[in-house]
Amino acid sequence: MKQEERDKIMLDRKIQDELRAVLGEDGFFVDPEDLASYSYDAFVREFTPDAVIVPRSTEEVSRIMKVAHREGIKIVARGAGTNLSGNAVARQGGMIISFTRMNRILEIDIRNRCAVVQPGVVNLVLQKEAKKRGFFYPPDPASMAVCTIGGNVALNAGGPRAVKYGVTRDYVMGLEVVLADGEIIRTGGKTVKNVSGYDLTRLLVGSEGTLGIVTEVTLRLIPLPQATKTLLALFSSVEEVAETVSAIVSAGIVPTTLELMDRVIIDVIRDVGGANFPPNAAALLLIEVDGDEESVEKQGQKVAAFCRERGAVQVDAAETQEEADRLWQARRSVGGAIYKVTPSLLVEDAVVPVSELPVMIRRIGELSKKYNLKVGVLAHAGDGNLHPDIMTDVKNAEEMERVEKFIHDMYEEVIALGGTLSGEHGIGIGKEKYMGLEFSERTLDLMRGIKRVFDPKNILNPGSFL
Amino acid sequence: MKQEERDKIMLDRKIQDELRAVLGEDGFFVDPEDLASYSYDAFVREFTPDAVIVPRSTEEVSRIMKVAHREGIKIVARGAGTNLSGNAVARQGGMIISFTRMNRILEIDIRNRCAVVQPGVVNLVLQKEAKKRGFFYPPDPASMAVCTIGGNVALNAGGPRAVKYGVTRDYVMGLEVVLADGEIIRTGGKTVKNVSGYDLTRLLVGSEGTLGIVTEVTLRLIPLPQATKTLLALFSSVEEVAETVSAIVSAGIVPTTLELMDRVIIDVIRDVGGANFPPNAAALLLIEVDGDEESVEKQGQKVAAFCRERGAVQVDAAETQEEADRLWQARRSVGGAIYKVTPSLLVEDAVVPVSELPVMIRRIGELSKKYNLKVGVLAHAGDGNLHPDIMTDVKNAEEMERVEKFIHDMYEEVIALGGTLSGEHGIGIGKEKYMGLEFSERTLDLMRGIKRVFDPKNILNPGSFL
Repeated sequence: MKQEERDKIMLDRKIQDELRAVLGEDGFFVDPEDLASYSYDAFVREFTPDAVIVPRSTEEVSRIMKVAHREGIKIVARGAGTNLSGNAVARQGGMIISFTRMNRILEIDIRNRCAVVQPGVVNLVLQKEAKKRGFFYPPDPASMAVCTIGGNVALNAGGPRAVKYGVTRDYVMGLEVVLADGEIIRTGGKTVKNVSGYDLTRLLVGSEGTLGIVTEVTLRLIPLPQATKTLLALFSSVEEVAETVSAIVSAGIVPTTLELMDRVIIDVIRDVGGANFPPNAAALLLIEVDGDEESVEKQGQKVAAFCRERGAVQVDAAETQEEADRLWQARRSVGGAIYKVTPSLLVEDAVVPVSELPVMIRRIGELSKKYNLKVGVLAHAGDGNLHPDIMTDVKNAEEMERVEKFIHDMYEEVIALGGTLSGEHGIGIGKEKYMGLEFSERTLDLMRGIKRVFDPKNILNPGSFL
Repeated sequence: MKQEERDKIMLDRKIQDELRAVLGEDGFFVDPEDLASYSYDAFVREFTPDAVIVPRSTEEVSRIMKVAHREGIKIVARGAGTNLSGNAVARQGGMIISFTRMNRILEIDIRNRCAVVQPGVVNLVLQKEAKKRGFFYPPDPASMAVCTIGGNVALNAGGPRAVKYGVTRDYVMGLEVVLADGEIIRTGGKTVKNVSGYDLTRLLVGSEGTLGIVTEVTLRLIPLPQATKTLLALFSSVEEVAETVSAIVSAGIVPTTLELMDRVIIDVIRDVGGANFPPNAAALLLIEVDGDEESVEKQGQKVAAFCRERGAVQVDAAETQEEADRLWQARRSVGGAIYKVTPSLLVEDAVVPVSELPVMIRRIGELSKKYNLKVGVLAHAGDGNLHPDIMTDVKNAEEMERVEKFIHDMYEEVIALGGTLSGEHGIGIGKEKYMGLEFSERTLDLMRGIKRVFDPKNILNPGSFL
């Protein structure tokens, strides 16, 4: 956007005063140094917002939205800014709503197995509070120590445990939502079953902040599994891993996690001293099973046998929590390790049917060779969700052209295999241009129509995938 | 509707010929005797359609919808007509699409743990086919031996197993849909994770045939549990049962089913000789647990102990499949038994948070006394889903007035307790007038807006809850 256009939408004094009156001095920011820290998220592009507002209540969000709607000010809701698709930045200017002050767990209701939380609650905080009471909130995005439930709902966040436990959508029972014009509605509630009217709850989950501002979330909790067992299997080829995963899935075994890492990732971790792998380890599968004490032992042995039969060069099973933590260390150190060897990292997010995992991994290898790029593959393999990690430098224009081509070809292949553009990161800025690969123009028109019903002035996270 | 109005929308000869050309003589019916059997469903009201069409393919559905859209002919999709909310009848005339000829299981894809089916596939047929391959399709509406997947999707059908395994929505991965104007779109696919664009799949599930005609469904399958254990606990009061259920749920035990029957139902079954209960049995809880062999034994013992601690006068555990069938017999005989003692049956469908189950059951008892009605309570108690069975005579106008008042007061109480108007039967004809209890006018406007986006001419199951 050109500077003249930006100036036009900058907030005039009168509106600033009006918003400040709602939010107080400590809830409204327009100073460049304050705005700077809200100009980026975990995606690679930066946009400085015109203001940042930090409401304390649904009531304040509603009052702000009334002003924004009247004035046509764009609004982007933001949790911890960990998202990888550019959904927490003000692409077209306007205001960022930050939920750092709406971060309370309002209730953990054991009798109805649910929690009622504000959007700014950190995922791991909720997990820990539920655990104290013997209950479990399964969705575990990699950023769970900082990312918020509001962001999880907006992006329908998943994580390693999704293979057994599903994604955020599967846990959202009800929402309180402030609409574009400030009106407050509620959807769903504390009942698991609900077929009354259209399912607005699940329409809002994963809508990337484009349909409404979520101000309260009712989440289903499940009983905490008694025991967990972690295994690490090393293979001499990624194809063997992919075949093993496919075999485990079709045998009807449901591990809690089935995390795959390929040779590129393993080498990076080895190079930065993140873990000690034998030299013939070219691919790795990190497996967790959970359940009753006895069933966990059995499942573990079954999975280990599967791995050995399919060529694993080494299978380690953790006997203690410390050993489990050691096995997880490699997986957890990936992000940090990669940033030590590359200036920029693009984490892609694609899903293929599990049966196509071997094909897709091979294809990613071919494409990275073709475009001469360093691409590692991490995958939540059990549900066919691949995260190709493109190690690049966004300042290298020539390389970025090759990156673009690689990404395009990759998603073309993903769709050809019956997959989808995103499993858990969302479309956002990065992938809007590929929507036409997955959806017909008519389907996109239906989505645009829904957007207009909720947000006729197009002020909620505009410039998104629609 | 008056006869003059009906005549206006009757199909003219030219359109009849056009439709017959698409469908063939054996796919298009306008004779009164053919129409008669499509004039009712399991709800209590009858409406004769203008025509019944029986397509063989998505292509044919698309061609029919093009004609219907052009001519403004109303369309109601129908599976087996077992639904209890009046959703499978032509309330405003027009044509019924029957899916009896689109009843093939197209694929059971074990590698991706899913099935691809046409809408006319009978639920139990799919369950059996999946079971043969060691897999499980859990949704089990009471009518599963005849009801179809298309109807299950339209109403988001549940069933006894929903307490552990969820409802139809939790298994729908993808859809093929013919839109109101005949265009064909696809949503979702064979991937479990998908956060690409708005979740049209789950918006369509439970939309009661108002947004599109589903012509193909991709359903998730899960591994078949190794073992099942059935228990029947008899109590001397329904309050004890409700408290037991609430205690089981908050203790973190997840039985597969937790079916409750109150004294009225038990007496009916006893009277018609459907089962032999001791005289002090005033309420019953039918429990099923599943999982590994060992875990099933343990769970069964735990649940039995819970029941005894809370006052069960008798707890029977089935040791064989025959014994389990015998325990289920009472539950399965309810429908038949009730029709022996009453001319008409209204099966209501309400959900409250599980913690409110004791309150709600008490309240239903009070209301049936107040309005002098015979109302039995069946409940999928584990998820707070109540089916009050109103035994009445729809031809008795005076009694029907009291029935109306009872239903109104009951749903008012349900909503006051944080519940919802429908857990698995849908809104349809019966409950449209109560939508204002659960939803604000604004929320209903959003739903109406969505309806207009999908069906601007309002030809799909019109006169529904919007």
